[in-house]
Amino acid sequence: MEFSQHFQKLIDDMRLDGRYRTFAELERIAGEFPTALWHGSDGQTKRVTVWCSNDYLGMGQNPEVLAAMHRSIDVSGAGTGGTRNISGTNRQHVALEAELADLHGKESALIFTSGWISNLAALGTLGRVLPECAIFSDALNHNSMIEGIRRSGAQRFIFRHNDPAHLDQLLSSIDPARPKVVAFESVYSMDGDIAPIAEICEVAERHGALTYLDEVHAVGLYGPRGGGISDRDGLTDRVTIIEGTLAKAFGVMGGYVSGPSLLMDVIRSMSDSFIFTTSICPHLAAGALAAVRHVKAHPDERRRQAENAVRLKVLLQKACIPVLDTPSHILPVMVGEAHLCRSISEELLARHAIYVQPINYPTVARGQERLRLTPTPFHTQCHMEALVEALIAVGNDLGWLQSREAA
Amino acid sequence: MEFSQHFQKLIDDMRLDGRYRTFAELERIAGEFPTALWHGSDGQTKRVTVWCSNDYLGMGQNPEVLAAMHRSIDVSGAGTGGTRNISGTNRQHVALEAELADLHGKESALIFTSGWISNLAALGTLGRVLPECAIFSDALNHNSMIEGIRRSGAQRFIFRHNDPAHLDQLLSSIDPARPKVVAFESVYSMDGDIAPIAEICEVAERHGALTYLDEVHAVGLYGPRGGGISDRDGLTDRVTIIEGTLAKAFGVMGGYVSGPSLLMDVIRSMSDSFIFTTSICPHLAAGALAAVRHVKAHPDERRRQAENAVRLKVLLQKACIPVLDTPSHILPVMVGEAHLCRSISEELLARHAIYVQPINYPTVARGQERLRLTPTPFHTQCHMEALVEALIAVGNDLGWLQSREAA
Repeated sequence: MEFSQHFQKLIDDMRLDGRYRTFAELERIAGEFPTALWHGSDGQTKRVTVWCSNDYLGMGQNPEVLAAMHRSIDVSGAGTGGTRNISGTNRQHVALEAELADLHGKESALIFTSGWISNLAALGTLGRVLPECAIFSDALNHNSMIEGIRRSGAQRFIFRHNDPAHLDQLLSSIDPARPKVVAFESVYSMDGDIAPIAEICEVAERHGALTYLDEVHAVGLYGPRGGGISDRDGLTDRVTIIEGTLAKAFGVMGGYVSGPSLLMDVIRSMSDSFIFTTSICPHLAAGALAAVRHVKAHPDERRRQAENAVRLKVLLQKACIPVLDTPSHILPVMVGEAHLCRSISEELLARHAIYVQPINYPTVARGQERLRLTPTPFHTQCHMEALVEALIAVGNDLGWLQSREAA
Repeated sequence: MEFSQHFQKLIDDMRLDGRYRTFAELERIAGEFPTALWHGSDGQTKRVTVWCSNDYLGMGQNPEVLAAMHRSIDVSGAGTGGTRNISGTNRQHVALEAELADLHGKESALIFTSGWISNLAALGTLGRVLPECAIFSDALNHNSMIEGIRRSGAQRFIFRHNDPAHLDQLLSSIDPARPKVVAFESVYSMDGDIAPIAEICEVAERHGALTYLDEVHAVGLYGPRGGGISDRDGLTDRVTIIEGTLAKAFGVMGGYVSGPSLLMDVIRSMSDSFIFTTSICPHLAAGALAAVRHVKAHPDERRRQAENAVRLKVLLQKACIPVLDTPSHILPVMVGEAHLCRSISEELLARHAIYVQPINYPTVARGQERLRLTPTPFHTQCHMEALVEALIAVGNDLGWLQSREAA
């Protein structure tokens, strides 16, 4: 093959850098989450406890969700065989979009094959169709939002992370007549911190800007109905578009946006990544619909998840393990070096049957390497204690925790 | 909402132009394809014959596929809860990737949430990581390939559709030392024509260019094992990367690329749309695996599909309906005007219980509006005769066929 040497060098550099990724091969076991079967490259298998899943509520094994999927497969089969426009809109999609709109108190919603595509499509279209549009983007926004904004061709302004005053300053710097969009997240995936939504909306409103809020790490988990941080804080009306995912707390796959019907119609009609993609399978929409309805009606599960997050954080803090003190369910344990981060993960798996993937560049900045722990309602006190003990043992063995104490 | 008037005008313009899209709401009926239940906005329902599905072989209702999905849901649940790197690689993904690599005689394969993303990710990454890369793109390449190439930042050269001589000329025009990629499709979705793969590969090889072939409308349908046109023509070895879909002839959803392991590793490691997306549900991979295996072993189904395509084309030609004489299973009936195209479709549905979505801009160029017919092994002689009679009746009523005769 041509250019082999060049490609080989790219891979070699990643290995040297510690950011070459080895995927752990898992086999999920419905009904036993967070336990899964791990398959090694040599054919060995092992039961492990998963501590890094975004199936935050274990909805991926919820009996109502699975039953809805089974039923829909029996009735309607597998794929749709078409884009939404060409034979690919099914009854299940329409029902799910209505449910998601209701979840966020919006007029309409639009589903996509992933959250990544939701952001690419929605921000990409908004920034493109509004003449002279300027998009104001939080410095820590997700890759998919950044790509959507880039792709839109709109002028981009980056405001300091969670800093409404800086946003205000940037908004004031351009012609007040220009269309403006403020794009930000509620719960930030890797640091687990939460945006000051009210303050950001207030600034945006003062400047007549649309607001676009990514709630993928919050939907299902916060608010009386699981509508996210905007729901918890009673702010859904203040945000123009709320973007979410079906692949994390709702346990299935796919992404969506919800907002005013007119805007949803514009995105539906003008976004090429939406227009030219086969729609999601009807049974996935049916499963997600069951998940959203279940989560809406069961605040107890998100309460148990929140309690477990606090419980684990306290255990980690007591053990002097460097966990960030986040206000959310995401508990980042900081390591700060790619090779070490990978070694800790490998030792946890090999010696303690605990699976936590190392988070290295480009998911986080270099020097910010970490283990990202996500307690669910299904992690027991026993799981937590085993995790903390294992982290201490591995940390001591690899000189990670000692070096921190010395420092 | 801010900017409402601007958004409203965009929608109004589309309506005036005839390119505002109304999605037909269907309910697929497993076991009865190509019959589906159509749901009208007024609550009425009607059984219709679907003539525009890309579920080309009806694999969306294949019992082996559905059984594999049911089994996998029982064993592993719904979603994976993670990106491929972070707890989202499951046994089913690994097995499917091995099967797809085998289908195309390649070392490796990589699956994505859609074909659109496969092209964006693969072409976007290749063009970006090869310094000074030039990508040579067929003039009629799909939107997703164009977006991948744009996003890569590589210099783009467009060669005339299916024209190896023009490709040769363009390849000769740049520094021979520069990395080059030739990107094209095998079966073109809207015109149903087929690329001269051998000639294009020969030109590419002479210039030391990698080749990237989109076979989404051919996988499962052509070749002794259903590997596409490259399989049919014995050319899989000549193409560097073959891209395909799980959402058309394989009846499920998702997309993939297959090629040399080193290249797959580069795309896997460096493509942000791959890195930052939750992996497809394990049961979708299991269903697709069953579909690929079934299709490999059942050439009779693609033979029946091909026979039906010829049979319908002859019927249409005899009735003087303006069908393009394509060498593939795609039969475009040309209309040439957006409002008329929509009216024909509406009349077919309302009066004849036949569903064919109008294909208008941007899916085809203005003036190229059409009905795109896709006969499957499940369309009977009776279905075909009913379609032709309905087209004649509607065509006469709306002055479509007369005006053609007059012209």
